[in-house]
Amino acid sequence: MDVRGKVISGRFLHAPGQDGIEILADAVVEVDAIGTITRVTPTADKHHAARRAAARQAGTLIELPARTAILPGFVDLHIHAPQYPQLGKALDVPLEVWLHRYTFPLEARYADLAFARKSYEALVGDLLAGGTTTALYFATVHQEASRLLAEICLAKGQRALVGKVAMDDPEACPPYYRDESARAAIDGTRALIDHLGALPGNGGLVKAVATPRFIPSCTDALLEGLGALTAECGCHVQTHCSESDWEHGHVLSRYGRTDAEMLDHFGLLTRRTVLAHSNFLTPADMDRLAARGSAVAHCPLSNAYFANAVFPIRAALAKQVRVGLGTDISGGPSASMLEVQRMAVAASRMLEGGVDPDLPADRRGRAGMRIDVPLAFHLATAGGADALDLPVGTFAPGKHFDAILVDPDAPGSTMRLFEEVDEESDLLEKIVYTASRPNLTCVWVGGRAVSGHSG
Amino acid sequence: MDVRGKVISGRFLHAPGQDGIEILADAVVEVDAIGTITRVTPTADKHHAARRAAARQAGTLIELPARTAILPGFVDLHIHAPQYPQLGKALDVPLEVWLHRYTFPLEARYADLAFARKSYEALVGDLLAGGTTTALYFATVHQEASRLLAEICLAKGQRALVGKVAMDDPEACPPYYRDESARAAIDGTRALIDHLGALPGNGGLVKAVATPRFIPSCTDALLEGLGALTAECGCHVQTHCSESDWEHGHVLSRYGRTDAEMLDHFGLLTRRTVLAHSNFLTPADMDRLAARGSAVAHCPLSNAYFANAVFPIRAALAKQVRVGLGTDISGGPSASMLEVQRMAVAASRMLEGGVDPDLPADRRGRAGMRIDVPLAFHLATAGGADALDLPVGTFAPGKHFDAILVDPDAPGSTMRLFEEVDEESDLLEKIVYTASRPNLTCVWVGGRAVSGHSG
Ligand SMILES: [Zn+2]
Ligand SMILES: [Zn+2]
Repeated sequence: MDVRGKVISGRFLHAPGQDGIEILADAVVEVDAIGTITRVTPTADKHHAARRAAARQAGTLIELPARTAILPGFVDLHIHAPQYPQLGKALDVPLEVWLHRYTFPLEARYADLAFARKSYEALVGDLLAGGTTTALYFATVHQEASRLLAEICLAKGQRALVGKVAMDDPEACPPYYRDESARAAIDGTRALIDHLGALPGNGGLVKAVATPRFIPSCTDALLEGLGALTAECGCHVQTHCSESDWEHGHVLSRYGRTDAEMLDHFGLLTRRTVLAHSNFLTPADMDRLAARGSAVAHCPLSNAYFANAVFPIRAALAKQVRVGLGTDISGGPSASMLEVQRMAVAASRMLEGGVDPDLPADRRGRAGMRIDVPLAFHLATAGGADALDLPVGTFAPGKHFDAILVDPDAPGSTMRLFEEVDEESDLLEKIVYTASRPNLTCVWVGGRAVSGHSG
Repeated sequence: MDVRGKVISGRFLHAPGQDGIEILADAVVEVDAIGTITRVTPTADKHHAARRAAARQAGTLIELPARTAILPGFVDLHIHAPQYPQLGKALDVPLEVWLHRYTFPLEARYADLAFARKSYEALVGDLLAGGTTTALYFATVHQEASRLLAEICLAKGQRALVGKVAMDDPEACPPYYRDESARAAIDGTRALIDHLGALPGNGGLVKAVATPRFIPSCTDALLEGLGALTAECGCHVQTHCSESDWEHGHVLSRYGRTDAEMLDHFGLLTRRTVLAHSNFLTPADMDRLAARGSAVAHCPLSNAYFANAVFPIRAALAKQVRVGLGTDISGGPSASMLEVQRMAVAASRMLEGGVDPDLPADRRGRAGMRIDVPLAFHLATAGGADALDLPVGTFAPGKHFDAILVDPDAPGSTMRLFEEVDEESDLLEKIVYTASRPNLTCVWVGGRAVSGHSG
């Protein structure tokens, strides 16, 4: 159902801060004609009854069923769109092998626009069905296919940032899949920015983002050029940073400085930068990120396979680094931000408790590292929104109405509520741990229904 | 669809051994009137065409669609049935708090048979829909509710082993939830064994299992008595073993010996024993389990919250210990054996690679500990079947036809196959990582359709 110009009455759950969730039970949320929230009236507000009555009178009231809940849509901060066809595949090889044997050959296929269309339509549709209302995408090196991805997001109504991947180092990138030169990569990035800015009907829903793949696949000329371009147009930047021992060590041995230092050196560490992974940031790197306002896309599903470590979320938050979550399709084997939240919590517990039973308890883990479900949910919504400086992720005036309707009683539901036992404060945990796609019965971006089966 | 007395033609995937899967593409599987496989004819067999033709002639041939796959049903070796209403809840407190504040009060409610029926019917139906064709259950201390669980399994057609929980130590168990005495617990166990053995229409589908909760909640008299009962009736045994630092240490300080040693001492370590968790088994404990033929129910989802360690599957298998997988509802927050397989693989990678980025790579993890998806799938099917000595878990003559039909193209599918990219050898990974309940379109136990929407 389209809720632009409507007034929604229901149970809203969101997590504006890092300290827990807020449940707006039976609240009234007003959405304007372009899908922006104009007013949120909780039950306790003295105007609550009047506003509800007025909307009913005006015929604009939408009352959602009692046992349902409305969540902010998920913000997925790290997706390799072209890798969707290999989701779940080949996770038992090292990163270098995975790139050259599987990933680069697959990405190279996106020169074929028919294949690109088929794959990207499946991906964007599936992400929306899974509640991902905002997506930060790596596309491929190809100009045409990158434009196509953005156009598909626009057509399907997903809020998206799309990067043409820039990778030009002939030492590191295969001849069949790389930019011809630093210049070509920089010009291609600019061309995508210009193209998306001029797309008919866009209105800011999709944007281009400067996307050096990672330092190991880029020449200094490319990194410098993209830094200059970023400074010039103020666009977002995304890349990988200090993901694994291999990648972290590669940059250290090339420059004698860390990934974060070098990205900063090249002008790529800005308030609009999102760094995937960042597991091996030093404390000084974290200070640097905090000073620049750059954000981390934590990808716990992928880290289990490729990172050799768990990103210490608590350490980063303590240093005021902005953090959100990402699937890292297909380094992570799931497209579901619910699964990402589950793994973010579980991985943090494994970091805290340790993993090897042969070690004594006091040398096994790292104290104070756990996060809970409300914090994971915050990172997946408001945290991701903040990382991108987008007005989404919570229910408040001025925010786009990007949201998910969760129905525990939907056909095919994997959630079970038991009135005899449940408390409302448990609802979020039940959703994050046990809901699945059949439970997400409607997904909205800017008030427009972009997925779902409730009309 | 009921396949008893039918001949099924389709693509069968199974993992009889620990060294990979076998794909029986376009095979013909014959099932007799009571749901036992009588013959499996692969395409390469010279009789393949004739047997297919004969079945078509006889009107017994069922041809499954080309892109579907048939897997053995999952064997879940560790489920606390009464805890289903709190699935996903309260995972951020220590085990002791979790038991006394949430779990024991919930389990105590099963004195109310109306509540028990509602909860158990939901659980068994949901597990079947998720492909769990065999379940090893802890029920509660209550005789009536334990019988009811078994009767619901029988009515819905799930292969199940059900234990009345035995816990009698007044020092450890709350007054509102424990057996009155060791004698009462032993008699109650025997009464359930007798009752289920005499259930009309049972025919071996459901069985009773001796179920001391764990050593910390039992007196020596109870453990001795259950050991004697086990020796007398040859029933299965299940309990928890060396789950966490706390539990492992508790037994060590009570007896000066390990959990496994003491269970053996009490006659509870038999060929029919399944030990949940067992993360802190010593090498000598593993040798002891191997000598007795006892099995481990590895529960990776739960271990992240309550175990402070990852069970080293590879170490156990190297010592010939039998291993299967369990959800550990509700210590683990999911009822899905697909999620358990995913986490078994991811946790093994985290054990191997380590978790703390502040440690040097060579001191971070434990070499050689990874498992892959085919091995996790083996553990979830043939491994679990072997742990219970049940003729299920693979497609071979003499096995019950317990199976799952996976349709990648089902409505609501979360799987995507891309003919341009996929190889048949990737299919299992795609299923384990990306399939969800809508993809499991039919589930059979003994050839009887027990869940699904394909007729
Ligand atoms: Zn990535
Ligand atoms: Zn348990």
